Formats: sequence, structure tokens, C-alpha cells
Amino acid sequence: MSFAELWESLLPIGRDPGTGGYRRFSWTDADRRCRDWFVRAATCRGLPVEHDHDGNLWAWWDTVPQGGVSRTGAVAAGSHLDSVPDGGAFDGPLGIVSAFAAIDSLRARGFVPARPVAVVAFTEEEGARFGVACLGSRLLTGAVAAGTARGLRDCAGVTLAEAMAAAGARPDRLGPDDDLPRRVAAYVELHIEQGRQLAALDAVIGVGEGIWPHGRWRFDFSGRADHAGTTALADRRDPMLPFAVTVLAARQAAGHHGALATFGKLSVVPGGVNAIGSAAHAWLDARAPDDGILERMTGEITAAADRAGAEHGVTVTVTRESFSPAVEFDPALRARAEAALARRAIKAARVRTGAGHDAGVLAARIPTAMLFVRNPSGVSHAPGEHADPADCATGVAALAAVLGELAGT
Amino acid sequence: MSFAELWESLLPIGRDPGTGGYRRFSWTDADRRCRDWFVRAATCRGLPVEHDHDGNLWAWWDTVPQGGVSRTGAVAAGSHLDSVPDGGAFDGPLGIVSAFAAIDSLRARGFVPARPVAVVAFTEEEGARFGVACLGSRLLTGAVAAGTARGLRDCAGVTLAEAMAAAGARPDRLGPDDDLPRRVAAYVELHIEQGRQLAALDAVIGVGEGIWPHGRWRFDFSGRADHAGTTALADRRDPMLPFAVTVLAARQAAGHHGALATFGKLSVVPGGVNAIGSAAHAWLDARAPDDGILERMTGEITAAADRAGAEHGVTVTVTRESFSPAVEFDPALRARAEAALARRAIKAARVRTGAGHDAGVLAARIPTAMLFVRNPSGVSHAPGEHADPADCATGVAALAAVLGELAGT
Repeated sequence: MSFAELWESLLPIGRDPGTGGYRRFSWTDADRRCRDWFVRAATCRGLPVEHDHDGNLWAWWDTVPQGGVSRTGAVAAGSHLDSVPDGGAFDGPLGIVSAFAAIDSLRARGFVPARPVAVVAFTEEEGARFGVACLGSRLLTGAVAAGTARGLRDCAGVTLAEAMAAAGARPDRLGPDDDLPRRVAAYVELHIEQGRQLAALDAVIGVGEGIWPHGRWRFDFSGRADHAGTTALADRRDPMLPFAVTVLAARQAAGHHGALATFGKLSVVPGGVNAIGSAAHAWLDARAPDDGILERMTGEITAAADRAGAEHGVTVTVTRESFSPAVEFDPALRARAEAALARRAIKAARVRTGAGHDAGVLAARIPTAMLFVRNPSGVSHAPGEHADPADCATGVAALAAVLGELAGT
Repeated sequence: MSFAELWESLLPIGRDPGTGGYRRFSWTDADRRCRDWFVRAATCRGLPVEHDHDGNLWAWWDTVPQGGVSRTGAVAAGSHLDSVPDGGAFDGPLGIVSAFAAIDSLRARGFVPARPVAVVAFTEEEGARFGVACLGSRLLTGAVAAGTARGLRDCAGVTLAEAMAAAGARPDRLGPDDDLPRRVAAYVELHIEQGRQLAALDAVIGVGEGIWPHGRWRFDFSGRADHAGTTALADRRDPMLPFAVTVLAARQAAGHHGALATFGKLSVVPGGVNAIGSAAHAWLDARAPDDGILERMTGEITAAADRAGAEHGVTVTVTRESFSPAVEFDPALRARAEAALARRAIKAARVRTGAGHDAGVLAARIPTAMLFVRNPSGVSHAPGEHADPADCATGVAALAAVLGELAGT
């Protein structure tokens, strides 16, 4: 199977015919079909597949040293197959398809690895079903406890343990791989770019410098339900008003700090057209170049919410639901990757991203690097997400160059 | 059954134990129990019950003229038993309980009506299940076509026709009563006040002058889904931003015009924490002292939405989903009601309301009047809605005085 054949065979799985977007949520039927696809892609290349304790899939290009197969000091490349609701085709799958294609390319030129090479698909990277992003890599590195993970619930109340069991997997085996640093010497994740930096830098390939610190904060605005048709303006405690002020304050603060702040989810209770809400629950996604800026920005947004709440008789409670500190990718690994790209005359620019990735989680335990493929429109997490075929081919060449460098003698 | 017994026996039906609010939605089990309660209250008073074609219940205190029972030229009093989600105990039921109690009071003093008197419970006044407020009275007067009504769907996709059939009612019989003006000479609706005008006027009872024109408008903000963690601020088309501007513009315009404007319902698509929305759908509830003010105010709010949309690359579409023009209650009927109250030394103040009522719908076909009972906190459509027992007793006395005036010789 060529890159195009791999890509085309994955494309129909989990695509919503109405929106054209993907709904590949972990441990669903679409997820099972993605896993079957992975196993087929590995098997037809003669790569044995390992299911680790945390639902992640590993396809091994083993070396055969004296004394038999050994899976230590490996170089792994991969990404994830799950999607956000109505996500695009590239976020995740491009890294896995490119890793298989890079192995094809290395084999075609007669490369013999000195270290094992693995293609890995991490589970629930988007957190779209159970609410914790990078769940598979967090479990693997011990950043999330197995008991906590088993109890996570989807929007229908199904726990991860129940969903895994229903899919024939073993939730009782969830837990960290303490042997990870010995088994995997380096992890390289290729990913479609999620903005438009590379087009501006006139480069097809980006090399990741790091990931912005980021987190999500829940803003609870608690007012009083009243009749929209009879309650005088002065008598209202309408939570929608301080929410609106906070949305605009977040945008202003993000612009001021060169950061990002977004309200993409809101739930109004009771949510009737002729009812002033009793409460509004909103989620802020905030990201910034460093931890200090992020803290100042979220502090300003919280202060604006508090002021507007006081003005409208609405109680405001802000809760940090998750936080990921800044990640710097391994400088030595990056230098070797950049040298390998330069030898192949592949122009690359350094980029920093606001998005979390399994590579960012794994960076706490093992050296990791990221490669990005240009995304001219910058659209991400939406059906319009796209990279040109020629740029994807350059991505495969770049990943092959880096894997050849890291797995070579 | 006294007023207190009637009231207490209705109180537990359809109350949510968690919120303390009511969920009496039409054609549900709670609705059936409310209807059973109505039939019991009528039967124990010897008032035969008529189920009209549109799901409304009528309990008849018939006169017996020469030639047998005749139901022409009647005086009707009533309200509704259904509620908004988590509504209060008084909105609707107070009018029906007070009508039964007023008949008890008239009988106790030996009053013999010259015209039939009816207690009526209209169905789906709140529109909480099928989305059309005053559905029972609108069907009765022909303001909503039977075919349209049968096809209305609840949030689970069940049609009114299906819900009625499941409850043992006859959706095929829905339709207008062209004989209504001959059968009912006047309709009087007693209702808990839904604001705090009466407390300020130092009156227990209000006499309705009219209902403000009001309507609901759907605002569709259409932007572009993107990744909240990577899309530069300048590249975004985030529908939440013009929505927030519009919420604040609506509040400002309402204050400027002495009117009411509320956004109580919002749906963001896809609604992920780390996703910039592709669209936001919001509903404006707007009410004003007259049609001209309402039109100017909604025009200003629409213009603010359009400006903010243009600024953020978001398309804004505004659709009027419903509109009820101003209602003036019958001046001659109001004068007779006020005279009757004065004779009983019941102090009453004239009030105008922003809320729709079956009395407003019926006013297009027959003379109608409204009485309001003081609501010190002004809370409405929420569990905290309350009128004091002494004020409720004054309400019964007021309604008895008016019915005595209208049904007397």
C-alpha cells in the first residue's frame, strides 16, 4: 500500500455524511475500524502489532541482533486516530500514515535499522469522548492514574472502563509503563500544522520548539431565573450579561498579551427563550507563550468576570479544570532532526504551537520531537482542514530522513 | 374543598424534588394528573366537565332557564395548569383554583347566576413542550391551524398528534370553535403578578390594561470552526464574539427604550472547549410598550449584531420566529370589573404586562379582562414565585365580585 492507498483506505471511516467531518471517538465502532485499519497496515508490512496496557497500538519494525528480537532503545513515530467532533481528516492520521510510508521509503532505499522502529497510535488524544486530552500517553507515563481514568464518563454516563470492556479491551490492565525510557529512546510525531505560520515563513516543514502552556477554566455565573417578559431590568440577575462581558474581555486580553483565549462552550440553565437564566456555565480555553503571561491573562479575564458579576448581581466562580505547563522539546534531538533534514535539502522552520500533543506528554519521560506539515488555510479541528499532497509527500520524506538518522548506526 | 384544600391537593403534582420547580408539560403524566385534579374539583362541586376539541377543560355552573340547560352568553374564568421548566406553583394554577373558590364564595352567599359560569383550563399555555405559547386558546380561536399544531414536535421529536393520541385524546378533532362568541360572552383570567408593580403601587389587586407587543427572534451567527489552541486571533471567525456584543447591545437598547430584551437560550456548534464555534444560534425575547418602540429596539439590536458580525467575519441572519401585537383589554368589561371591585372596597391598580396570556389570545374574539395578585418579590417562572395567602384570598374575593357582576341579572 502506497501513501495514497493507506490514506484513501482510512478516509471513509467515521466520516459524518452530513458535515463531512470525522467522529472517531475512542472505543466506539469507528474507533474499532480505525484500529483494524492500523493492524492491516502493519500486517501487510510484516510489522507485528503490540497492544499496550493503555489502549495504544504499536507496530514494530524489529531489529534482529544476536540473541533474538529486542525492543529496547527504539525510535517511535506516530500520532493518533481519534478526532474531535466533526474534525478534519489530517489531525492525527497524517502522522501515522506518514510513519508507515516513511518505513516503506527507508526499506525501498535498502536502509537497515540499528535500532527498532515503531509506529504508534495513541488512544483518546483529543479527549473528545472522556474529556481528558492525551489520555493514552498520560496513562502510559503515569500522568493520569488508572483508577481515575477508569471512572471517566462520556456524555451519556458510560465510564471508560465500561466502554473498553464493551469493545473487548481490558480496563483492569490500564497503568504506567515504568520501562518506557528503556524501551523507547526517542519519539517523533509528525502533525499537520494547526495555524498558518509555515506559509508565512515559506517553508513546507516545521520543527517543533515547544508547546505553549495551556489549560481550561470553568466560569460559573450564578444568577436568578425570572420571566423574560415581566422582570424589570433593574430587578434582574441575568448571568448572560457578565458572560458576554467576559467573552469580550478574554478576546481583548489575548490580543494584549499575544496569547489565545476562547469561549467555545456555554450551557445556560434552564435555557428557555422566555426565561432569564438561573446560571450560565462557560469554559475558557487559554494558551500563552509562557506560564507568567498565561497567569496574568487568566487573572485579568477572571477580574473582568468578577466586576461584571458584581454589577449584575451574579455570583462568579472560576475553577481551573486542567493545566499543561510549557513543554520544550529535546534540543539535542531537534538538532539531529534539523541536520537530517538539511542533508536531504528539506527546508524547515522552527515553530511553537499552542496545541497539546502526545509528544508533549511523553516529553516528561523521553526525548521527543515534532515535525509539522504546512496547512495553507490554517483550518484545524474542522472539515476544511487540509494539506496539499505534495506537502504530505515532503512530510514523509522529512520523517524518513529523521527516522533514518535516529535509527541508523 | 376550600381554597387551601384545592391548592394543597394540586401542589405535589409535577414538582421536581431536586429543584422544587414544576415540570407540568402538556400531555405527559403530570399533565394527566393535573387534568384528573381539575375533574375532581369540578365534580365535587356538581359542575359537569366538557373537554373541548383543543384539549381545554371547561367546568360548567349551568343556569337552568325555561327549555333546559343552555350554554350561551357564559362568563368564563380560568387560566392554565401547565408550567415552564422548573416553573413556580402560582403561574396558571392560581387562576383556576381562584375560579373554583370564587364559585364557592358566590354560592355561599346565595348568588344565583343569570348566565352560565365556566371554569376553564387552557392547554399548553407556556409552550414549554411544543414551542407555541397559548396553543390551546390559539387553536380555539383559529390563530393556529389544526394541521400545523398536529405537526409540532417536542424536543424528543414527538409530534403533538402523537402525544395527544398516547394520552388518549383525539388530535383529529383539533380546530377552531366558530361558535365561541355566542357561547362565551366574557373571559376573566386571574394571574399572579409577574413583576413588582403592585407592591410599589400599594395595591393587592391589579386590573389589566393590556399586554405589550412581544416576540422572539432567532439570531444565527455563522463563523468558522477552528482550533482554539492554534488559530491566530486575526484569522478567526468566532461567532461567540458578535453574540456577546449583541447581548450587551440588547440590554442597552432595552434600557434606552423602557422595554425588555433578553437572550436566555444559546446553542454553540460544535460546542467543544478547545474548538472555536462554527456557529452560534441565539434567541432574543423582546417586549415593548408599543409596536413602534419594539420595532425600533429590535432594529437597533439587529444593527449591532450586523456590525459586530462584519468586524469578526461572521455572517448574521435574524429571523422573527413569532410575534404577538399589542393587546388592549375590553374597556367596557374593565370598567364593570373596576366598579365591582370598588363596591367590595377592594383597592385595585391598573397594570400593563409584558407577558402573553390566553386572555390576550381570546381578546381577538371575545371581551376579556385580567386580574393580577400582588407578587412581592416579582419572581416569575422560577420556584421562588410566591403570593401571600392573604393576597390570594383577596384575589378570590375580587374574582367573585367580578363574576357576580358579569353573571348577575
